[in-house]
Amino acid sequence: MGDKYNLLLLFDRPHEPVFMEKGRGVVFDVPKKFLTDRYRVIDNEVLDRFSERAESLVNVRDISMPDLSLPSKLSRKAHFSLCVPAHRIMAVRLIDTFMSAPTVAELQSVAVYGHDRLNPYLFNYALSVAILHRKDTKGMGVPSLIQSFPNKFVDRQIFRHLREECTIVPEGSRMAILIPHDYTASEDEPEHRLWYFREDFGVNLYHWHRYLMYPFEASERSVVYKARRGELFYYMYQQILARYNVERLGNNLKRVEPLMDLREYIKEGYFPKMESAPRFDNTKLSDVRRHQDQLIMDIEDLEQWSERIKEAITKGFVLDESEKHIPLNIDELGNIIESSMASPNRNLYGDLHNMGHLFIAYAHDPSHRHLESFGVVGDLATAMRDPAFYRWHAYLDSIFQQHKAQLLPYIVAELRYEGFSLTSVEVTAEDVREPNILQTFWQESDIDLSRGMDFAPRGNIFARFKHLQHAPFTYTIKVTNESTTKRFGLVRIFLGPKFDEQDQTMTFNEQRLLMIELDKFVVALQPDENVIRRRSTESSLTIPVERTFRDPAVARVSNETMQHACGWPHHMLIPKGSTNGLQCELVVMVTNYEQESVEEEPISGADSCGNHHLLQYDQRALGYPFDRQSRLGAERLADFLTPNMIVADVVIRHVDRTEHCC
Amino acid sequence: MGDKYNLLLLFDRPHEPVFMEKGRGVVFDVPKKFLTDRYRVIDNEVLDRFSERAESLVNVRDISMPDLSLPSKLSRKAHFSLCVPAHRIMAVRLIDTFMSAPTVAELQSVAVYGHDRLNPYLFNYALSVAILHRKDTKGMGVPSLIQSFPNKFVDRQIFRHLREECTIVPEGSRMAILIPHDYTASEDEPEHRLWYFREDFGVNLYHWHRYLMYPFEASERSVVYKARRGELFYYMYQQILARYNVERLGNNLKRVEPLMDLREYIKEGYFPKMESAPRFDNTKLSDVRRHQDQLIMDIEDLEQWSERIKEAITKGFVLDESEKHIPLNIDELGNIIESSMASPNRNLYGDLHNMGHLFIAYAHDPSHRHLESFGVVGDLATAMRDPAFYRWHAYLDSIFQQHKAQLLPYIVAELRYEGFSLTSVEVTAEDVREPNILQTFWQESDIDLSRGMDFAPRGNIFARFKHLQHAPFTYTIKVTNESTTKRFGLVRIFLGPKFDEQDQTMTFNEQRLLMIELDKFVVALQPDENVIRRRSTESSLTIPVERTFRDPAVARVSNETMQHACGWPHHMLIPKGSTNGLQCELVVMVTNYEQESVEEEPISGADSCGNHHLLQYDQRALGYPFDRQSRLGAERLADFLTPNMIVADVVIRHVDRTEHCC
Repeated sequence: MGDKYNLLLLFDRPHEPVFMEKGRGVVFDVPKKFLTDRYRVIDNEVLDRFSERAESLVNVRDISMPDLSLPSKLSRKAHFSLCVPAHRIMAVRLIDTFMSAPTVAELQSVAVYGHDRLNPYLFNYALSVAILHRKDTKGMGVPSLIQSFPNKFVDRQIFRHLREECTIVPEGSRMAILIPHDYTASEDEPEHRLWYFREDFGVNLYHWHRYLMYPFEASERSVVYKARRGELFYYMYQQILARYNVERLGNNLKRVEPLMDLREYIKEGYFPKMESAPRFDNTKLSDVRRHQDQLIMDIEDLEQWSERIKEAITKGFVLDESEKHIPLNIDELGNIIESSMASPNRNLYGDLHNMGHLFIAYAHDPSHRHLESFGVVGDLATAMRDPAFYRWHAYLDSIFQQHKAQLLPYIVAELRYEGFSLTSVEVTAEDVREPNILQTFWQESDIDLSRGMDFAPRGNIFARFKHLQHAPFTYTIKVTNESTTKRFGLVRIFLGPKFDEQDQTMTFNEQRLLMIELDKFVVALQPDENVIRRRSTESSLTIPVERTFRDPAVARVSNETMQHACGWPHHMLIPKGSTNGLQCELVVMVTNYEQESVEEEPISGADSCGNHHLLQYDQRALGYPFDRQSRLGAERLADFLTPNMIVADVVIRHVDRTEHCC
Repeated sequence: MGDKYNLLLLFDRPHEPVFMEKGRGVVFDVPKKFLTDRYRVIDNEVLDRFSERAESLVNVRDISMPDLSLPSKLSRKAHFSLCVPAHRIMAVRLIDTFMSAPTVAELQSVAVYGHDRLNPYLFNYALSVAILHRKDTKGMGVPSLIQSFPNKFVDRQIFRHLREECTIVPEGSRMAILIPHDYTASEDEPEHRLWYFREDFGVNLYHWHRYLMYPFEASERSVVYKARRGELFYYMYQQILARYNVERLGNNLKRVEPLMDLREYIKEGYFPKMESAPRFDNTKLSDVRRHQDQLIMDIEDLEQWSERIKEAITKGFVLDESEKHIPLNIDELGNIIESSMASPNRNLYGDLHNMGHLFIAYAHDPSHRHLESFGVVGDLATAMRDPAFYRWHAYLDSIFQQHKAQLLPYIVAELRYEGFSLTSVEVTAEDVREPNILQTFWQESDIDLSRGMDFAPRGNIFARFKHLQHAPFTYTIKVTNESTTKRFGLVRIFLGPKFDEQDQTMTFNEQRLLMIELDKFVVALQPDENVIRRRSTESSLTIPVERTFRDPAVARVSNETMQHACGWPHHMLIPKGSTNGLQCELVVMVTNYEQESVEEEPISGADSCGNHHLLQYDQRALGYPFDRQSRLGAERLADFLTPNMIVADVVIRHVDRTEHCC
């Protein structure tokens, strides 16, 4: 009855009316007046038909409804994007409505009522945000977007196949349907070598989750104003780019070219093979004139915002709305570029990140003459599929780096930690005899897509995805604690490529931008030598692939909270190797951990998710020690090291085999 | 058992395996060895499950199977196009296989076996051609393509809606689902004013039917070499263009610009809102390099073929494969440009019509780097949706007109018919008080799409289409037979616009290209004055919209043959008027009909379909008297007339109301 977990059933089969079976045998006992016009005329027919079959009926309280008129304006058929300001306003209103329902029962009533009246993507987004932020639904988690909307993650061709299996084969005999992989372009398209990264469902879900945890706006300030929000924005994309560039180097591609000139042809086409429009090779951006979306925007606007932001970086301060000078820091800069409510002056600095997405996403129909919606890059749940996403974000990162370049390099005192010294590090991967060799390969994982198979027969139906995987490995790190007492150290582990596109050793300032953070954890260090063994699967920054598809209602049975459901997908921890081996350097650094114990304490105002671990243990800049340019004399990584750092050469080999997972 | 009409059930729900219910309660008793791999492992489960529910079981003879390996090469998921030579070769092989099955029972066995192994579009095409051409299935007709593949005719968004209605609402209570119209572009796109023509399902089905009746190749010569095949090719497109241009004038658009220069940007973009790829505004054609389709072709190839054809026109002869001169006539020219087996030299004159379609259809991915299939213009069932179709065909028509321009103008003796004179003509439309005013409006028609709703619950599900319609009208024609005996006259009725884009009266040579043939029939004329009353609905050149959706199996009950199921869609007989009235001229001409009676006799070698009427009564050139330029001194239509012709000013008014049809 009052079970809050019933809310999660409202994510099932989003296009099926709310009175149909949700989950296994559950039917919401929908008040007749909640029905939409089509079904009100045959209310007895439909309500009886579905409730008779129910194993359990969920009581839905008939309350007086809040005003849903604004969010109802988005057509049920429309595509929904957080990048579109008009959509964002509707989302804010709906989030507020869901947040302000006094009880879970009332929230359930509003959601049941809204289910068939609101755009299903908007509904999913706002209800997810509310569940993740309300106190009375804390720790519940929400189902993964791929389960409600598999159409945003897989080739549209597959649905007929899934439907066939559901219709013909009884549940027990159903076979997993292999989702095509490597299907959006051919070998002739160099950019396509990165398909396994750009089109990975885990990678895209990770990106989407940021926006569930960090809404742009809300009446409740704590939903938006979270600790180091802007810096986390910067660092998430910086790390994504670092990873993408390392993957590129491993695939014999140059690092991604920032989209510096918005007036040039974008040479990289992308055909998503989904409902979204493609972009042809060599398409130009155009001024956007989309009256329906209330979006009238010139390329010049983007250029002006960029100029103003760069000017603020040079001057070291930004102007708020009352023209007051605010010192610029990375957090402020992130807020400006992300342009949430937390931006100090959206009027002056605009909405650069989102609008860049939209200009690219509307390149095929900037005037809306052809009534087209945005391409994949316009939807934050699918944006990472498109090569142009990385070109845009490389440009944004260049702005962040301009700020970072103005900061004084870390001096040795800011890097070393007296009393700790690292003497060796080694990684050993399962089933690999030599040390410091990592191995990547392909893996197939099955996901139940039945919750997204609207209007198909019930019962589990599994899709089989192919994705990158690596052999689990262990770090063995030797640390000397030169003091005489037990102390705590904070360990950071990074991985970066050793050579550039021309096989030349990289300078520190190049390499630092390609350093991928693999793990971050606290250890107790006894006096003298300590041998730390840390398994790759323990990484505090990743979540296992299965977690992505864990049903929150199942997690609940095991009394587990879903709060950590949003790290980087663990199967993508290590970049894909090459047959000959991608030459990398692994950097380990130990710094002080001042607290006396390592119990997890929530950071006030931090999100309840992966970033927690990034922020938990110290207040240093994200990406430290690689977030700034090197001090004089430290042109190479070797010169940069202090005794509390150590580096090892690591080779990543890729074996072209496919294993079946779980 | 041996009922040939069971063959038609194989067109139902083409993606559902052949052992599922087809039609109402009918199940094919499929031999186990016919099952595909997926189902062979659970054969008892699936076969029993479906056959138990059957109201009637169709016996399928287990015969030794012909070789289907070539047509099986086309993936079940691929798009199929008659324009692609590799696909055509597969289609020819499959047509031959279906044509050569000795009995209907054996044809049924091969078709049942092939159903789940062959590409569904290819299967539909080849089986349709076989049924339309085999002696033992004569007169049966085949179901309309829109019923098997509604996805080729309507917005893809609608299918979720149809599926919802099928799943939730019991058959008796289902409502027709309104198919969006006017949805592919906005008012800001001038080309979109023609949506009701380009996207009309009847217009597209009419075009498709040509290719069912005139396959490009077949082992049985009579299937390909039909009377005046090439001329009918020319005339079908000439009339389509005439109609399209008149519609354009009525919508304040200029006549379509021929795609003379294949290297220019095609300014007209088109977003079909179907599975096919769009074409952006201002897309250039490129050389085609699609190895998978065995299609390596340069724009230069097209240009060369054009040049050679134009040279042949100038010289008045073509070279066959042994370099022999063959005098050029319109029929030969049509065969060359269509490039069927009937072309005298495909090597030299190439495959102009089809390849032009493909160059446009592949403009978004000419190298196949993005693994994209063709746009709508690459599929002859959807090609007429795209504005570029008309630009390409206007170019082809300019070649035909170059030939026509070399023919001597008709002299008066070739036009007039001594003894007949026309004294008046008038049209009166239903519910229109004034004479010579025609009226167009919108109409909605319902079509049962249940046969195309693969994997959805059974039962009729109607879609409601909006299309142009006109008030029925009657021609009243007064003819004087100056002889003293009863004679037969052949009446031709044409309609054309009176003014050009600048509101100037057109010259004969402009106007003749815009003359739409409305009707053609034989009348008995008594001596002295005769008053002929002919209803518009009697037009021998059109078929009523309902006919398009008539189930051949139902027609069979009323003992009617489906042979005339392929005229121009009657609802499109009259171009859309304008609010103020589109000024037209109606031309009636009576010539001699030499035979003594007007009984219908099949023309040997003619198709069994609408074109029958074009060819039946005389051997004059199609389009006569407007197919040639005017004689000296006949610069205007008025000067061109002979006493056996008459012209009337007719105005077409459009009223913006929507009526519900049948």
